[in-house]
Amino acid sequence: MAAGRAVGCFGLTEPDFGSNPAGMRTSARRDGDDWILNCTKMWITNGSIADAAVVWAQTDGGIRGFVVPADTPGFSAPEIERKMSLRASVTSELVLDDVRLPASAVLPNAKGLRGPLTALSEARFGIAFGAIGAARDCLETAIEYAQSRAVFDKPLSAYQLTQAKIADMAVELGKGHLLAYHLGRITDRGEITPEQISTGKLNNVREAIAIARECRTILGANGITLEYPVIRHANNLESVLTYEGTSEMHQLTIGKALTGQAAFR
Amino acid sequence: MAAGRAVGCFGLTEPDFGSNPAGMRTSARRDGDDWILNCTKMWITNGSIADAAVVWAQTDGGIRGFVVPADTPGFSAPEIERKMSLRASVTSELVLDDVRLPASAVLPNAKGLRGPLTALSEARFGIAFGAIGAARDCLETAIEYAQSRAVFDKPLSAYQLTQAKIADMAVELGKGHLLAYHLGRITDRGEITPEQISTGKLNNVREAIAIARECRTILGANGITLEYPVIRHANNLESVLTYEGTSEMHQLTIGKALTGQAAFR
Amino acid sequence: MAAGRAVGCFGLTEPDFGSNPAGMRTSARRDGDDWILNCTKMWITNGSIADAAVVWAQTDGGIRGFVVPADTPGFSAPEIERKMSLRASVTSELVLDDVRLPASAVLPNAKGLRGPLTALSEARFGIAFGAIGAARDCLETAIEYAQSRAVFDKPLSAYQLTQAKIADMAVELGKGHLLAYHLGRITDRGEITPEQISTGKLNNVREAIAIARECRTILGANGITLEYPVIRHANNLESVLTYEGTSEMHQLTIGKALTGQAAFR
Amino acid sequence: MAAGRAVGCFGLTEPDFGSNPAGMRTSARRDGDDWILNCTKMWITNGSIADAAVVWAQTDGGIRGFVVPADTPGFSAPEIERKMSLRASVTSELVLDDVRLPASAVLPNAKGLRGPLTALSEARFGIAFGAIGAARDCLETAIEYAQSRAVFDKPLSAYQLTQAKIADMAVELGKGHLLAYHLGRITDRGEITPEQISTGKLNNVREAIAIARECRTILGANGITLEYPVIRHANNLESVLTYEGTSEMHQLTIGKALTGQAAFR
Repeated sequence: MAAGRAVGCFGLTEPDFGSNPAGMRTSARRDGDDWILNCTKMWITNGSIADAAVVWAQTDGGIRGFVVPADTPGFSAPEIERKMSLRASVTSELVLDDVRLPASAVLPNAKGLRGPLTALSEARFGIAFGAIGAARDCLETAIEYAQSRAVFDKPLSAYQLTQAKIADMAVELGKGHLLAYHLGRITDRGEITPEQISTGKLNNVREAIAIARECRTILGANGITLEYPVIRHANNLESVLTYEGTSEMHQLTIGKALTGQAAFR
Repeated sequence: MAAGRAVGCFGLTEPDFGSNPAGMRTSARRDGDDWILNCTKMWITNGSIADAAVVWAQTDGGIRGFVVPADTPGFSAPEIERKMSLRASVTSELVLDDVRLPASAVLPNAKGLRGPLTALSEARFGIAFGAIGAARDCLETAIEYAQSRAVFDKPLSAYQLTQAKIADMAVELGKGHLLAYHLGRITDRGEITPEQISTGKLNNVREAIAIARECRTILGANGITLEYPVIRHANNLESVLTYEGTSEMHQLTIGKALTGQAAFR
Repeated sequence: MAAGRAVGCFGLTEPDFGSNPAGMRTSARRDGDDWILNCTKMWITNGSIADAAVVWAQTDGGIRGFVVPADTPGFSAPEIERKMSLRASVTSELVLDDVRLPASAVLPNAKGLRGPLTALSEARFGIAFGAIGAARDCLETAIEYAQSRAVFDKPLSAYQLTQAKIADMAVELGKGHLLAYHLGRITDRGEITPEQISTGKLNNVREAIAIARECRTILGANGITLEYPVIRHANNLESVLTYEGTSEMHQLTIGKALTGQAAFR
Repeated sequence: MAAGRAVGCFGLTEPDFGSNPAGMRTSARRDGDDWILNCTKMWITNGSIADAAVVWAQTDGGIRGFVVPADTPGFSAPEIERKMSLRASVTSELVLDDVRLPASAVLPNAKGLRGPLTALSEARFGIAFGAIGAARDCLETAIEYAQSRAVFDKPLSAYQLTQAKIADMAVELGKGHLLAYHLGRITDRGEITPEQISTGKLNNVREAIAIARECRTILGANGITLEYPVIRHANNLESVLTYEGTSEMHQLTIGKALTGQAAFR
């Protein structure tokens, strides 16, 4: 995989456990030295084209990761069809039906969810930047469009209502930039906390999708086609809004940090 | 057409004149008894599959409507591709390149934009109802989903954050219903005004798309697929938000009625 | 009281039990035929000027109401000072320190909270109308002000940004009207439900205070003085937003009706 | 004044020229070497208690500043009464009725509005910080209150709806901090632009007042008294929202910088 000769996928999420991975139903039980896995994982990027999947499962010794080659009997990865979001990537279910794996399939150094959750924490940090990039593309597109588009006798960009939209979006975009850089500096110092990452993910995705939707209105009817990147970003950000922690999970993570009380359940 | 044996399309909007149809560039000039038309119309529903188009054009005697059979030389109707919205319908450009029409092609009783704008006024009234229907479908879907979906140890619908979303959406949906019925009663009395229609179109579409987007978040990752109707409604409502008058045009129509001052330009 | 010769007050709310009146700490215990009451009630309108208070208290037989003449030993009603809201009315604490009342002080037909909560239900219904009245006063004031106020070379009301504010407020005000009338018709039929009343109180107060605040901005600096009614309404509506059920309590009441699950605790 | 032995006030704003100071009606005409001033200035902090006022007026040579001792015949400064905002400070009208001043009353180095507008630019920069301070006080008060306040059987701060409010406010407060510091660093480098200052003023005041209002709801009925700082901040921020440029003026300043088109008029 590191050499780019094989595609892998990361099988953590289950249909009913998006926000609560520790509750996963997937279990791996021993059969002699082998392991037998049964589960359904959902929303797995690249599942259908992967050469191997890393699948997380409950064991007697806690949650462990297993490397499952795609040609293992009992393994299948049907693609999730009819997506309106992230259509350039393949998203799949992973179905493991009495999949038998040797002892060596277990990831040796990853016990519990610390490993995968650390990976997700880094993903969230990246999302805080990526969402800003999408929003910036939308805003630049909308400003350029508004300047070139005449309504009555002047450019759309010369109207107060358009300028107020553009100004408010630019202010939010700027704050999102500042937040991402700020988190980057804290990360470089090795001091980032989960609630700070939650702040970046929550805010930057929420504001980015708001910007994408507002820019869509500036593009008028042209905003509904893929000739412009805006509606593509808006639809892709729907996924981003949900994955790596919904807005609600991040609000409650921040709320817990500020009040000392957990309100998740 | 009335018998359902032919498909027609309605060619009013031009690329730069969505909000200002009176400014249309399309012109029809006389050549003996015939008319010669040149124009590009845009965002024409069913243009590519129509047997005939009604095309509006500037003449020396004001704006007039012309019936243009689809097989008239110089007429073409290329489909607009890569739409993310209203994908079940065909949307097209109409290109008229020196299209020659006989004198009988002119609609006899429609002078100026009164005719087409009356049709649009009725369309807007219908939109106020249709948008509410889409929002209702989204909300019912989201409530049912939230009730059946477990997060941690109880249904998603049992959480405060979900209930606040549902309650706020139900309140807005109810108000949209009341508004649509109210406008219906005024219409039945023959007393509806343009600014009242603007109120219905502006509010019901704006709130419907907000509801669709919020419901999408309740569906989580499932919200991005067409297995559920929500993201389809959300994307379709992007078109509805723009057509038949953008939010800004309706705000300014209402604003003019309340202040006596026109602020469109 | 009914003849207008005496002032009464209604003592239900306690400092920690605004949203949970059934949890009240006030208790009345028997001492022979008499009752002894101890409690602190809070946010009692007219408490300091009342000739008698109706005070609700826990008894062995459930919550009962007691009529307490203001000159009863042990009764005091210190006024709450430094209010920024509802400054035209007196708001008080009621302090009952071993207040002794005869058996006849008990309201005979009110057992449990059904009585006072019915009164509050009717109050909430009235609030749905009152809030709209306040909002209407604000909007009319703001429109008139904007029309008479020149900025650069034309009235403030002729600017797009002002018109968009006015239009959006008029739309919300209209919907609030429709909702209040609708609830009135249901009430006349005797069919009103608690969640419908919640809808009226939640929506109309929330939108009214938003309108008042927006109108304040249209009045510019003049918006901060009591020469215009707007900031007075805005501040008064702060009380209204909280009393007779906070927005959150009403959201959860509606949420429970729609999902079947109570999420209050 | 610099020594703190005299109070001054700054007379720029006129009743109809809050957003357009260059349009001021105040004129100063020469009478021999003297100047004769006539005007009404409005919303002048400390006007009634000032020993001297700096008054800006149109002259043949452009707008100039004049030092007017408070005991000059024809000068009066009636206090503006019944304010609900900034009640700890005195706000006044300045009325100059044929006030005669010697030639030496003119500020020598301030021609045009560059001088006063530079002062205002610095004031706006300070406001970006001050608003954040007010918001921070509100949020800290609300969190502490929510933690100490029991609703049903747990603290108000342990509820999801409260935590979502707190989290969202903390995110906005944090972004406001980052923005203020960022503008501070740019200012230190001497590179600040008017549209950057507009960003700070627009955003930080707008978000601060939203935070103050939301915190008020967390304090419930206690939120309406001056025992807690929240409603005081909320009301004071109403002034701040308007002075030093309304939100609309700053939106249009930013809009002009981004589009190249001025949409003020």
